[in-house]
Amino acid sequence: MIRAAVVGASGYTGIELLRLLQRHPQVQVTCMTGDSSAGKDIQSIYPHLQGFYGNRIETVDPDAIAEQADVAFIALPSGHAGGIVPGLLKNGLRVIDLGGDLRLPADLYETWYGKKPVPAEVQNEAVYGLSEWYREEIKEAKLIANPGCFPTATLLALLPLIQAAAVEKDSIIVDAKSGVSGAGRTASLGSLFAEVNENFKAYRVNQHQHTPEIEMQLSRIAGEKVIMTFTPHLVPMNRGILATCYAKVKAGWTQSKLFDLYRSTYEGKPFVRIRPEGNYPQTKEVAGSNLCDIGLSLDHRTGRLTVLSAIDNLVKGASGQAIQNLNIMMGFEETSGLTAVPLYP
Amino acid sequence: MIRAAVVGASGYTGIELLRLLQRHPQVQVTCMTGDSSAGKDIQSIYPHLQGFYGNRIETVDPDAIAEQADVAFIALPSGHAGGIVPGLLKNGLRVIDLGGDLRLPADLYETWYGKKPVPAEVQNEAVYGLSEWYREEIKEAKLIANPGCFPTATLLALLPLIQAAAVEKDSIIVDAKSGVSGAGRTASLGSLFAEVNENFKAYRVNQHQHTPEIEMQLSRIAGEKVIMTFTPHLVPMNRGILATCYAKVKAGWTQSKLFDLYRSTYEGKPFVRIRPEGNYPQTKEVAGSNLCDIGLSLDHRTGRLTVLSAIDNLVKGASGQAIQNLNIMMGFEETSGLTAVPLYP
Amino acid sequence: MIRAAVVGASGYTGIELLRLLQRHPQVQVTCMTGDSSAGKDIQSIYPHLQGFYGNRIETVDPDAIAEQADVAFIALPSGHAGGIVPGLLKNGLRVIDLGGDLRLPADLYETWYGKKPVPAEVQNEAVYGLSEWYREEIKEAKLIANPGCFPTATLLALLPLIQAAAVEKDSIIVDAKSGVSGAGRTASLGSLFAEVNENFKAYRVNQHQHTPEIEMQLSRIAGEKVIMTFTPHLVPMNRGILATCYAKVKAGWTQSKLFDLYRSTYEGKPFVRIRPEGNYPQTKEVAGSNLCDIGLSLDHRTGRLTVLSAIDNLVKGASGQAIQNLNIMMGFEETSGLTAVPLYP
Amino acid sequence: MIRAAVVGASGYTGIELLRLLQRHPQVQVTCMTGDSSAGKDIQSIYPHLQGFYGNRIETVDPDAIAEQADVAFIALPSGHAGGIVPGLLKNGLRVIDLGGDLRLPADLYETWYGKKPVPAEVQNEAVYGLSEWYREEIKEAKLIANPGCFPTATLLALLPLIQAAAVEKDSIIVDAKSGVSGAGRTASLGSLFAEVNENFKAYRVNQHQHTPEIEMQLSRIAGEKVIMTFTPHLVPMNRGILATCYAKVKAGWTQSKLFDLYRSTYEGKPFVRIRPEGNYPQTKEVAGSNLCDIGLSLDHRTGRLTVLSAIDNLVKGASGQAIQNLNIMMGFEETSGLTAVPLYP
Repeated sequence: MIRAAVVGASGYTGIELLRLLQRHPQVQVTCMTGDSSAGKDIQSIYPHLQGFYGNRIETVDPDAIAEQADVAFIALPSGHAGGIVPGLLKNGLRVIDLGGDLRLPADLYETWYGKKPVPAEVQNEAVYGLSEWYREEIKEAKLIANPGCFPTATLLALLPLIQAAAVEKDSIIVDAKSGVSGAGRTASLGSLFAEVNENFKAYRVNQHQHTPEIEMQLSRIAGEKVIMTFTPHLVPMNRGILATCYAKVKAGWTQSKLFDLYRSTYEGKPFVRIRPEGNYPQTKEVAGSNLCDIGLSLDHRTGRLTVLSAIDNLVKGASGQAIQNLNIMMGFEETSGLTAVPLYP
Repeated sequence: MIRAAVVGASGYTGIELLRLLQRHPQVQVTCMTGDSSAGKDIQSIYPHLQGFYGNRIETVDPDAIAEQADVAFIALPSGHAGGIVPGLLKNGLRVIDLGGDLRLPADLYETWYGKKPVPAEVQNEAVYGLSEWYREEIKEAKLIANPGCFPTATLLALLPLIQAAAVEKDSIIVDAKSGVSGAGRTASLGSLFAEVNENFKAYRVNQHQHTPEIEMQLSRIAGEKVIMTFTPHLVPMNRGILATCYAKVKAGWTQSKLFDLYRSTYEGKPFVRIRPEGNYPQTKEVAGSNLCDIGLSLDHRTGRLTVLSAIDNLVKGASGQAIQNLNIMMGFEETSGLTAVPLYP
Repeated sequence: MIRAAVVGASGYTGIELLRLLQRHPQVQVTCMTGDSSAGKDIQSIYPHLQGFYGNRIETVDPDAIAEQADVAFIALPSGHAGGIVPGLLKNGLRVIDLGGDLRLPADLYETWYGKKPVPAEVQNEAVYGLSEWYREEIKEAKLIANPGCFPTATLLALLPLIQAAAVEKDSIIVDAKSGVSGAGRTASLGSLFAEVNENFKAYRVNQHQHTPEIEMQLSRIAGEKVIMTFTPHLVPMNRGILATCYAKVKAGWTQSKLFDLYRSTYEGKPFVRIRPEGNYPQTKEVAGSNLCDIGLSLDHRTGRLTVLSAIDNLVKGASGQAIQNLNIMMGFEETSGLTAVPLYP
Repeated sequence: MIRAAVVGASGYTGIELLRLLQRHPQVQVTCMTGDSSAGKDIQSIYPHLQGFYGNRIETVDPDAIAEQADVAFIALPSGHAGGIVPGLLKNGLRVIDLGGDLRLPADLYETWYGKKPVPAEVQNEAVYGLSEWYREEIKEAKLIANPGCFPTATLLALLPLIQAAAVEKDSIIVDAKSGVSGAGRTASLGSLFAEVNENFKAYRVNQHQHTPEIEMQLSRIAGEKVIMTFTPHLVPMNRGILATCYAKVKAGWTQSKLFDLYRSTYEGKPFVRIRPEGNYPQTKEVAGSNLCDIGLSLDHRTGRLTVLSAIDNLVKGASGQAIQNLNIMMGFEETSGLTAVPLYP
């Protein structure tokens, strides 16, 4: 049984870690911290946790955390990880950061997040935690930069094509749609029920900070610079991301060959399911689970491939993938604690 | 490991049984049946089950079921249980019926359901499966009439008062609100998204078939006939029931005494949580779980008590309670397979 | 053409006034004020108004307002009306306050709102603007205390019974359900989409400030003190209130006689529709309109009457009723500007 | 005052015509027909219309209709217009068909709709009713093929670029998202609340029958064949379409020049609003109105333009545009009956 600290326990990804870890046979949450909620019992903030967790939330202190835990999940708003990660690493903990602070090099981070980046040596140590693609690195890592929700759905959809050099690299467009929990538990006008319900809109058009993150990984696998268009949208639902990805396929790639590519790429990967031909993923079909469902349609008229990818933004898009990475790091069964059937309806 | 058959696997309570049983350490689903879906793979009807269940749905045949299972959960529309239950019992299976056919004596059933009731000897054998209140009977039972969703929320809220003779028995009003999955997976105009969304309404006013079911149990515990007003409403959400129950308290009952009553009544009952004073249950706080949250407020001005009770209609209101009853019948840990933290948000 | 000022134009009731008045043949909005938004164009806050209104929002100044308008609608948060109403009245304007500050005598206001009440002489001058019941007083009034949303739905449902002395006055329970726009456009945790969606709950149980307002009007029509239980709930929808009201009927009142009572009471009242027997109102059926739909069901078993009443909380529950009152005060057709068919679906 | 017949009054576009025409100063609905609902009063099917419309629905009979009306709106399911349009035209009525049967030549129709097309002479007479683009033709027309909802949003977004030859014609991708009322008022599993709510998905990927309709108009304005990728998605909301359109811009086109293009193209078009730079349309901001809001963002990094277009699928996407076309045909003010402010929230 290893001991885990959840730093930033009172946000949505924080309590999602609590929900998933409560069922994990090898991990026990021993410590919850968060500066804004310090001193309160977690169940006073979240009554649904009554009977499951009785912890009092402590202030964020790397040394105190180090005494109570072997691994720390950081679920803080962006801009805060740099203040705590070095101290935890120094104390010998494994660290998994669910935020965006460790995913990009300093210049890109500053441009897209508009904040002061973490020191280079910290960012360099971080391994990008896209479990299905960087398993070997993750296994050896001490520090994980857990991927963003949109990038997870997008990269799982596109990387097989990039790796197989199956598409024209300047033709990629990703039109992504997310439920509202991705915005976090912050009182803001744009997240009010009456503003979001019976409404659909795009936001941060050509400006979302997940763009460089996606491009960085696409370029990495491609072996050359790849840029793309990424448009996020807000759906009036709590959970779920559907990424509709478009790319021009190169000559010789038929629908049949593409299906073979996806099936073989994700062979043995327990969380990625390729839908049968003519069948497309729906966010509800993975709700509450760590699954990613992928569907494909090649339009012979235009030579353009549409790849659809559905995840639960809080699970495979954040907390579930973080636990999956922990399992890999600790040599546990990769699916440990993550075997739930999706909630339907 | 005991073997379970799910009869009527393609409805919402059916797949909820599949979801919950997949995590049950002592139960394995070996057989799924349903006449309308016979011959299809369950995952072709429900893609979210891909990788979890690969069963083909069979026709409903008591003898074939008996060969494959030790217990059968019946999740058929009302009016159908009578055709299969006797055969299963004869073959020595334990049977848990999630429908309404076994909950009422013939005359009440005919009046409120407008259908031909099951034979009296079958109905007489059925034990009403309100787990927290009839545990001893359930333990010995071969046949369970699993309670309806509204009755479960209502009875858990009211029975402590009835048992303690704390309220005037002719003052009871229950105003109940349910999410739409309670209507089942049937294509009907009233369940269309555009009809339900951005809408709230009452239905079957003074006519809902759960009324006699609730009154029967209230009368049973009261030792005398109790009738009440029951008004169901439809909420634009998938899961959840909130029952707001009103009753005039008798002299001598203070808020403090009432809290003591509820806490002691439900002491040791793992699925009922009494909210702290001033705190009221929300359906989201029990979503996906077998929990029932209860809150109380006594108004000194009117002498009227308001008791609020929240459950997930598919879990504690149906499939979860059915499994809880199975656990009691088989001598398993009562919480076996039902330990999930509610899904939030 | 009379000129109207909207004080507090940037809240939901404020823009609902703008929407409705844009179609009013005899009223023109000449002035919008609000301290928090002063200096901004209304369409920068609400892009949907582009092309309809280009006004700049001004600070709240009774003298400036008096120069531009003949009537002022006050749509400010509670506690603010007292600072502006006297000045406007002194300047000879008709004033309609949509907030709660003028509806109650000082002692009740202080108890239930927890704020300092307006001076007695201001409150005394205010006429309670329940259009269907106080038409004659409203006609002569200079100052209207526009009713709250829940009280409007509740009083329209109950007053016929009170006036006819048809029910036992200590048996009244109102279980009310509202969409989220009633909470206003304020960034608060409880109004976040992810908190409200897929959730249903009660709030301010036995504590809602609409309770004394409802009781005051019931007592007024009854000619004696009437108290009741009022429980508000939050529905995951934008607009709509359904009030489910319960009362014990006195001897001699049949369902038929009750229908006659309601039909005759509301004869000639253009906005109240009595649903046919067996038919119950749904909030969607009055959405965006100034209508109130009422349905009745008498349960012979219990002698209890259930009256259901549906309104749009922003229209008949606030801005629509305010305009209806203005029409009465100015001698316009009572339906002027309020003739829209409900939006369906 | 001209007299209008609504053929197929009991579907969502049918009642949306009733809602809008009720406020039209020059049009009166004198006749409602529909075979499945014939003999019923419209308000028994739609209680929200009580007090507005008391019509009895008649069977569909071109001669009977011709006696009562000057213009007929056809709001029937696809495949039915052919049976009634010729008879109405013969009788001298103006006809506006809201369905898809007249929008495409026979071969395309058969391929994409899978149904027998209308006779060529009928289809040839039909003028495509995209009001802002074909005003002159519409003015002279006797028969209008009212555009589909997705095509309306898409074409309003893309035609300025096509007309100005500003984009590479083989680079066009349209990712469209619609509320559920677009599916109509038919009891089907896929439109059930519990299936749609808390869910997002694509459907008819590379197969939607609006694809040839969009391509036909793009090609027409381009003067050469244009094909594109069109992916529709279902949003858990009642009304609204957002079309996110992508195209590679040709050299020389800056964001500023593009804004000028859109503003000048839609100068004097009362229903199209171009959002300020950095501002993007939301479906809620046009809800219930005949407006179309458009926003643009040119990404210098990729040279790709993203154009977003929001409409209400039942209004500008169907019934509102039909009335706008009637106004043009009859020489009425183009905005007659269509001046409502959007419903917010």
